Amino acid sequence: MNTLTVDLGTRSYPIYIGQALLGTPGMLAPHIGGRQVMVVSNETIAPLYLQTVLGMLADFDTATVILPDGEQYKNLDTLNMIFSSLLENRFNRDCTLVALGGGVVGDITGFAAASYQRGVAFLQIPTTLLAQVDSSVGGKTGVNHPRGKNMIGAFHQPRCVLIDTNTLDTLDDRQLAAGIAEVIKYGLIHDAGFFEWLETNMEALKARDKQALGYAIERSCAIKAEIVAADERESGKRALLNLGHTFGHAIETAMGYGNWLHGEAVAAGMLMAADLSARHGWLTADTVQRTAKLLQQAGLPTAPPDEMEEAQFMQLMAIDKKVVGGSLRLVLLKALGDAIVTGDFKQELLSETLRGGA
Amino acid sequence: MNTLTVDLGTRSYPIYIGQALLGTPGMLAPHIGGRQVMVVSNETIAPLYLQTVLGMLADFDTATVILPDGEQYKNLDTLNMIFSSLLENRFNRDCTLVALGGGVVGDITGFAAASYQRGVAFLQIPTTLLAQVDSSVGGKTGVNHPRGKNMIGAFHQPRCVLIDTNTLDTLDDRQLAAGIAEVIKYGLIHDAGFFEWLETNMEALKARDKQALGYAIERSCAIKAEIVAADERESGKRALLNLGHTFGHAIETAMGYGNWLHGEAVAAGMLMAADLSARHGWLTADTVQRTAKLLQQAGLPTAPPDEMEEAQFMQLMAIDKKVVGGSLRLVLLKALGDAIVTGDFKQELLSETLRGGA
Repeated sequence: MNTLTVDLGTRSYPIYIGQALLGTPGMLAPHIGGRQVMVVSNETIAPLYLQTVLGMLADFDTATVILPDGEQYKNLDTLNMIFSSLLENRFNRDCTLVALGGGVVGDITGFAAASYQRGVAFLQIPTTLLAQVDSSVGGKTGVNHPRGKNMIGAFHQPRCVLIDTNTLDTLDDRQLAAGIAEVIKYGLIHDAGFFEWLETNMEALKARDKQALGYAIERSCAIKAEIVAADERESGKRALLNLGHTFGHAIETAMGYGNWLHGEAVAAGMLMAADLSARHGWLTADTVQRTAKLLQQAGLPTAPPDEMEEAQFMQLMAIDKKVVGGSLRLVLLKALGDAIVTGDFKQELLSETLRGGA
Repeated sequence: MNTLTVDLGTRSYPIYIGQALLGTPGMLAPHIGGRQVMVVSNETIAPLYLQTVLGMLADFDTATVILPDGEQYKNLDTLNMIFSSLLENRFNRDCTLVALGGGVVGDITGFAAASYQRGVAFLQIPTTLLAQVDSSVGGKTGVNHPRGKNMIGAFHQPRCVLIDTNTLDTLDDRQLAAGIAEVIKYGLIHDAGFFEWLETNMEALKARDKQALGYAIERSCAIKAEIVAADERESGKRALLNLGHTFGHAIETAMGYGNWLHGEAVAAGMLMAADLSARHGWLTADTVQRTAKLLQQAGLPTAPPDEMEEAQFMQLMAIDKKVVGGSLRLVLLKALGDAIVTGDFKQELLSETLRGGA
């Protein structure tokens, strides 16, 4: 087992990464303050791992909530299911929530923990690659609104993140690829050497080689932990983690939540960001090609849906969280491994990217 | 105009108290960062003051949301009305929300500000006495759940609180009395001298004497600001502000939100707390009598609804936010002006209080 730390002063917490951590006694208890623990999972993950997790919590008073599975359920109604269950079970302010599942379960459970009685503790047990390398770390929680993704939420850090890489054995190929999109992101924004490692090891990742996956998860979490520690509430550097997300969120919202997986939309969005960067002369055509090839190897889309036109993109991107003073800002690439957040791009070049012109 | 400060480091903010502050140019603008301002009010208050407030914001891009009026609308659905309007108007993370109304408007708007895009700025313009002396100050925001009052929310401080005492001219007598309940609370928990001042000046307050109301508001806000500055997130002393609230919330939840006003339920709850304190020998019968008399003078109830029985109280109080490790804690009085939070009370004496026995 490897342990990383997200260094946030009194809110610091460990990320445990290893095989067969689920079921290992004593992993969770040190991070739980009171007696009451609510495990939140979904109907896909609960049959696989819920009993194991409840077994790890035998010393506590536990209850469970099982949510429907899918991004389309990441909304206020599903959030309220958790509140109702907490109140039915008379959970108090010293209770702890445990998120057992992918990014949707983690984001909703985290926001429930942030809001229940104005804030209770929670732990993350991410079971998808995407959640393990990205959404479970850093304290961004929330739900979607029909008009915009992740528009309602809170910054609320977990007490620990427990990543059992064996859970990836039960992940379907499409979900695995969606997680790899976020792994590639870390290479693009922060670490050209890691990008090259991914070029060499993509087949091993797709074959679910445990050593390769373990390294990719550790490197991703280490980069994310470093960036979050430097800028917890996204007043600066943390926005770099949103490479491809402004385009990607527009795709997810336009196509209906759950139709494009988040990682798929981000993959298309990252290539759009690379394309726009190249149009400004910041990135070489060769780097854009390498990025496209790596995404293709991973089994990810490299273009937005045909039916999305420039006007729809512009409308949906106008409510992006990085808009400041009415001006859209985007994460773009100055070089492989070097990203910036900038409003200083040419509108006509953005139009070309959105129209998919050559 | 008098200015108090809630001293919370980088999150410190002023409370402005005076007559005819609404309409005074330059009161709000210094507390607004971006261009976009959303004024949230309700259908009772908007016809009275909305145009005046929009006039103060002529230099900004404004939009408005008008909520239905009443505690029964303090829920996730109404909260979502604000999110929808923010997104329809493409409000960004640098926007500011303005709460114009009573405690319900302030609590919902504050929670919307805490949650929209994971946190935006907001200002409080409380127009009821209860909101002016209590709910607009201190950053407690949230909504109710059918099973419990204020069970969903966040700590999120406003950028300023603007109290125009002229707004009390349009408040009905029942709402005025409900606000006086919270004023009496400050005397009971913190300031025996202020309690005595209230005994002398209750008729002036009920006659809406501006000087008396101004003093009562200033003294209440000063006590609240002092307690909040010492314990923002209610890990200790701040819980004293909940005198009567554990009983009161149970009454509000049991009777259906909006049937008993919050201040009315708190009045009955405070007398129950005083009664229980006297049963432990901490408070004299004379002090309980003086409290009952003052509440009666204010036109407030001094007993819970007849139909509420002990079992229902116990069930509803079991999810109170002050419960720790499964044990109920209550705010009780050691003397006039001296409150404690304690789990160290006798269950049989609590039963006597809940049964209303002599």
